[in-house]
Amino acid sequence: MGSTFGTCCKISIFGESHGNAIGVTIDGFPAGINFDEEFIKSEMARRAPSSNVFSTSRKEADEFEVLSGVFDGRTTGAPITAIIRNTNQHSSDYEGLRTNPRPSHADFTAFIRYNNNHDVRGGGHFSGRLTAPLVFAGALCKLALEQYEIHIISHISSVGDIKDTPFDKVNITPETIDLLSEKAFPVMDETASELMTALISKARISADSVGGTIECAVLGLPAGLGSPMFDGVESVLSQIIFGIPAVKGLEFGSGFSMSAMFGSQANDEFCINEDGDIATRSNNNGGILGGITSGMPVIFKTAIKPTASIGRPQKTVNLRTGTETDITVGGRHDPCIVPRAVPVIEAAAAVAFLDMMLLKNGYNKE
Amino acid sequence: MGSTFGTCCKISIFGESHGNAIGVTIDGFPAGINFDEEFIKSEMARRAPSSNVFSTSRKEADEFEVLSGVFDGRTTGAPITAIIRNTNQHSSDYEGLRTNPRPSHADFTAFIRYNNNHDVRGGGHFSGRLTAPLVFAGALCKLALEQYEIHIISHISSVGDIKDTPFDKVNITPETIDLLSEKAFPVMDETASELMTALISKARISADSVGGTIECAVLGLPAGLGSPMFDGVESVLSQIIFGIPAVKGLEFGSGFSMSAMFGSQANDEFCINEDGDIATRSNNNGGILGGITSGMPVIFKTAIKPTASIGRPQKTVNLRTGTETDITVGGRHDPCIVPRAVPVIEAAAAVAFLDMMLLKNGYNKE
Amino acid sequence: MGSTFGTCCKISIFGESHGNAIGVTIDGFPAGINFDEEFIKSEMARRAPSSNVFSTSRKEADEFEVLSGVFDGRTTGAPITAIIRNTNQHSSDYEGLRTNPRPSHADFTAFIRYNNNHDVRGGGHFSGRLTAPLVFAGALCKLALEQYEIHIISHISSVGDIKDTPFDKVNITPETIDLLSEKAFPVMDETASELMTALISKARISADSVGGTIECAVLGLPAGLGSPMFDGVESVLSQIIFGIPAVKGLEFGSGFSMSAMFGSQANDEFCINEDGDIATRSNNNGGILGGITSGMPVIFKTAIKPTASIGRPQKTVNLRTGTETDITVGGRHDPCIVPRAVPVIEAAAAVAFLDMMLLKNGYNKE
Amino acid sequence: MGSTFGTCCKISIFGESHGNAIGVTIDGFPAGINFDEEFIKSEMARRAPSSNVFSTSRKEADEFEVLSGVFDGRTTGAPITAIIRNTNQHSSDYEGLRTNPRPSHADFTAFIRYNNNHDVRGGGHFSGRLTAPLVFAGALCKLALEQYEIHIISHISSVGDIKDTPFDKVNITPETIDLLSEKAFPVMDETASELMTALISKARISADSVGGTIECAVLGLPAGLGSPMFDGVESVLSQIIFGIPAVKGLEFGSGFSMSAMFGSQANDEFCINEDGDIATRSNNNGGILGGITSGMPVIFKTAIKPTASIGRPQKTVNLRTGTETDITVGGRHDPCIVPRAVPVIEAAAAVAFLDMMLLKNGYNKE
Repeated sequence: MGSTFGTCCKISIFGESHGNAIGVTIDGFPAGINFDEEFIKSEMARRAPSSNVFSTSRKEADEFEVLSGVFDGRTTGAPITAIIRNTNQHSSDYEGLRTNPRPSHADFTAFIRYNNNHDVRGGGHFSGRLTAPLVFAGALCKLALEQYEIHIISHISSVGDIKDTPFDKVNITPETIDLLSEKAFPVMDETASELMTALISKARISADSVGGTIECAVLGLPAGLGSPMFDGVESVLSQIIFGIPAVKGLEFGSGFSMSAMFGSQANDEFCINEDGDIATRSNNNGGILGGITSGMPVIFKTAIKPTASIGRPQKTVNLRTGTETDITVGGRHDPCIVPRAVPVIEAAAAVAFLDMMLLKNGYNKE
Repeated sequence: MGSTFGTCCKISIFGESHGNAIGVTIDGFPAGINFDEEFIKSEMARRAPSSNVFSTSRKEADEFEVLSGVFDGRTTGAPITAIIRNTNQHSSDYEGLRTNPRPSHADFTAFIRYNNNHDVRGGGHFSGRLTAPLVFAGALCKLALEQYEIHIISHISSVGDIKDTPFDKVNITPETIDLLSEKAFPVMDETASELMTALISKARISADSVGGTIECAVLGLPAGLGSPMFDGVESVLSQIIFGIPAVKGLEFGSGFSMSAMFGSQANDEFCINEDGDIATRSNNNGGILGGITSGMPVIFKTAIKPTASIGRPQKTVNLRTGTETDITVGGRHDPCIVPRAVPVIEAAAAVAFLDMMLLKNGYNKE
Repeated sequence: MGSTFGTCCKISIFGESHGNAIGVTIDGFPAGINFDEEFIKSEMARRAPSSNVFSTSRKEADEFEVLSGVFDGRTTGAPITAIIRNTNQHSSDYEGLRTNPRPSHADFTAFIRYNNNHDVRGGGHFSGRLTAPLVFAGALCKLALEQYEIHIISHISSVGDIKDTPFDKVNITPETIDLLSEKAFPVMDETASELMTALISKARISADSVGGTIECAVLGLPAGLGSPMFDGVESVLSQIIFGIPAVKGLEFGSGFSMSAMFGSQANDEFCINEDGDIATRSNNNGGILGGITSGMPVIFKTAIKPTASIGRPQKTVNLRTGTETDITVGGRHDPCIVPRAVPVIEAAAAVAFLDMMLLKNGYNKE
Repeated sequence: MGSTFGTCCKISIFGESHGNAIGVTIDGFPAGINFDEEFIKSEMARRAPSSNVFSTSRKEADEFEVLSGVFDGRTTGAPITAIIRNTNQHSSDYEGLRTNPRPSHADFTAFIRYNNNHDVRGGGHFSGRLTAPLVFAGALCKLALEQYEIHIISHISSVGDIKDTPFDKVNITPETIDLLSEKAFPVMDETASELMTALISKARISADSVGGTIECAVLGLPAGLGSPMFDGVESVLSQIIFGIPAVKGLEFGSGFSMSAMFGSQANDEFCINEDGDIATRSNNNGGILGGITSGMPVIFKTAIKPTASIGRPQKTVNLRTGTETDITVGGRHDPCIVPRAVPVIEAAAAVAFLDMMLLKNGYNKE
């Protein structure tokens, strides 16, 4: 009823931005996966706020403690719970939010949904901070997917109106993967990268924010993954992706562009590829036909809205008096959350695909 | 595990394009809803193939028989099952599909997923024909939503590169609703409408097809509907929408355009509207904040790929011999399925929102 | 929300006793299972009313029509729907039930639950007749379990106070299986069998009914099946078993008797059995430890209440006037439904174990 | 996939007996419920080990820390997570369990299920200690049920072959409730109570254990709660009850005794009771007809097997060598867990009924 996702491998995310702790329980995670703490920390670090131009100065170490499900360096098969303490709380910053909801935030809808009982501090359970436990879960799922040689790679495909070169949907080369893996700001086209950072700086300076898109590829998936209709790959993936704060759009393969094509342009003809395998010449369908993987890379793009918190005065309504008023959101905020959203999108994809792989292969093949 | 959707009100769709029948079971539908047969038939008729320029000449009456759950003209509360007999089967047309998968169809992925046991005729369970029972379910759900004065309206927002005027996301007037309700080809801008039909005709004549987008609005929803994270309105809606064949993209509010905005442009400021209610001045978030409805219209746009079946020769692979070969898809096919997809999208939205309303209000309020 | 069960393989049962048809949709059933029509019919026949002493004279052929999911004699992997037409409706018999609920039936609770919109004829969706589609689903699941050499066998362990010899929980011999498979009235002890039939006849003659218990064994299950806590074998099985009308109790292994033992009596010590496998010397735990199968036979016993419909006058309340009144339930009714419940219990077990096997092995092992 | 339960209000239990912590996440819990810490602690204390005759001397304070979902003394509507640190770990006690599984414990099945990756210490996730977070969740759910005036009361109905007076299923008086609420060892018949404690002492002295049964009543439930077939009250309740370690049987109303009755004895005739409400004269059906509550008390009895850990040598198999061997389970263990299981059964019932009430009434009635 909200913060739980999955069928075979269920994640349940909890916590509030300024409560005692945030965390995740992962129920149904496979036993015997090496708990690679360094890898998990590196994934968490990709999401954590840093002091560069893109990010806020709130310093949360995002140090996790594993409470259960890991023993002798391996997963036990029992539920894994990890928590991250909230160490840097300035509750007083937020008291006004109970009456004056911030535009584009969930303050107002939470007020209605929970009859004003919600924890209003920092957006409570709706805070982007709740993506930290998702990244933890995703890192573990990536480790489990590695045994199938399934890998996830992504880049910032746009910031504002600046666009990166799109993925070659048919063939994402090892060079591309290596290139992106090394970058803290994963953009393929160096010029675009510079323009994007300039745009983010501009937004920062003008107390504004800017949105963007992330293109993600999942490589190594077997053909035949997913189920028809409402448990198709697109359905499963979209359920978790739209659970990430600030996501407002999602397309697979050529997505919206494909809707502007003729069938003769859009259809992906089958062929025998260089390795002698059945493949398609193009990949407008993003590796998914009828909800089921075709063996081509699964490609999807996510639209991230600009950070809702901006330093400028905005109009809002006082919920107590029912009158219009002004609000200026205090604190420091990321002018662009897209870079930090990259590992979050990947984490969500990892969680979804591990669940789908478990449905396909079972928890314990005979 | 595929064709089942929902929590409180579960739909389970069954059938294959050329099997005995297709249909749907709706478990958990509220008791005491008037079974307005004329309305349901009119919804089915909106989806049914007709003899105009957009559609194929296959004549399926789509006559449904209700097997259960309706008594004395009202729903009983027990599961409702309706079936539609397949009366017009040309199985011989399709035998070749077992070896030669059609590009952009699910023939290949079904072959892998089901180890070649799938019913290959007409795409089997993956056929667009399976949207007929979804429209039946949606029509019933619309009737149930009417008691809350929730209404769904939509228009074809693009065909190929021709675009209709977008909805005014803040205020969809009764005039707009009336206008669209009367049109068989629901486009607001008359010029765009003519250009679209011309484009569809062009595709038809050139044995090609063309895609498009549908913008849909859900009006009258209470604020506070939906749950955080993975059961947010976007998550729930996307799961069912991506279950519709040919859907490759989905965005809420301004969606991908919003990702290109600055926060100062994108944020929806709160105000007191003319009725004295809390509202927002703009609605880039599409009526959803933190996954929960704000009381503004819920607006979303769906990308529909061009009909996969086209009359031109295409490349494919013979699955038996493992060699490349040509395929020409026989039969008559819609050059553009977007008009027929309109009631399907609405039906999916109706099913999803009824389920969300039942979670909010329960099956039987005290 | 009621009549749907399962995770990987979902069954959704629909229909009302005197509606157009009853049936079941099975979503997620494995592809490529031979559709052995004769076997399914024989299972349906075990449940169908017959003209012997145990049963009513209502003659329902229980002939099913398969609408989807079967092609060329094998399951396709798409949802399987089968329906059974209701051919023998005497609706007039039941009109009084809307005001005068029958004791021990669901008439009153359905009246409240559905605000008097329920189909009252013959108990509507609550009728024992709804077990026919469950037996259909169970027969299919038995066919799927056969590939793992998993078999289900059961006997009537008591009728009234007459008890059959209990199963040897450690070793159910092929002779026992053969003996029970051949019997229309599956009781191991011939003397008990005669006493039971005499007791049923006595109940019949005195316009009364009698209950009983069924002991069921599932053989050939691998060790390691099931998940901890709420998805343990007992939890999964109990959810479906208690969904069968008239079931009021369920115990695993020695169950309630085990609760009266000392640990030194109850504990099942491990040993190496004659085949060199790890086994237990006794099986008071019924083949389940911590919710997970041990490789020993899974044994459970179900308590079936006496048929609620009896020919004697009983007290009830007129729901319109709110006053006490008498009711005599018309029609002919089984004096004992236990014999007909045997295939139903087995069917439920087959559905539950197939689902658990699919979770373990996946739909498509790599 | 194991340790998660519920539809609207989902609980997810995590932890291992000797890991860092155990706990529970409750997703979908209603907002605005007073967090009555004293009450919750008193419920936890009922389950905690004490130094009396029934219990072990392991001293776990069972002090919980709430990480999320509670703010200003009220629930926020966001997921509630509470953890209990494991402070008293003697891991060395348990190392032998990896090779020598304890009879009647889950050591062997966990070994198979998790390919020997399970945390073997103290039974890991299968430990009875995992009922502590269930009691925490149940205490919160009891607080939420109080607003509907729904109360749960229970007594030890048997220990070994000693039986308490059964509940009057039609009318559980306030005196009975008061009497039982005050007792640490809740038995109604004082003589039975003494015999039970004597039997437990006897088991303790002889390094043995003894089982028992618990009869539980849920009072104040509205009629019309529950859904047909697989979401009936019996189905929902049984799924969670059988998730409690050591539960091997469950019956509703007169249960197994009812199966030995004639219909004329068993049927609960309707009447107008003293308050002018529709009721039944008897309550053999335990307040549930067709899976739906009738407004009578819901009564169920649970069979608890004797504590698996006993101080006597037992036979087992060395999993490494595959040979039979002896095991003597070290440490101190409860000779009878039935008294401590009482609050656990109540907690499970509270969780299940709150979930059912939320399905009925919604999270936020209009």
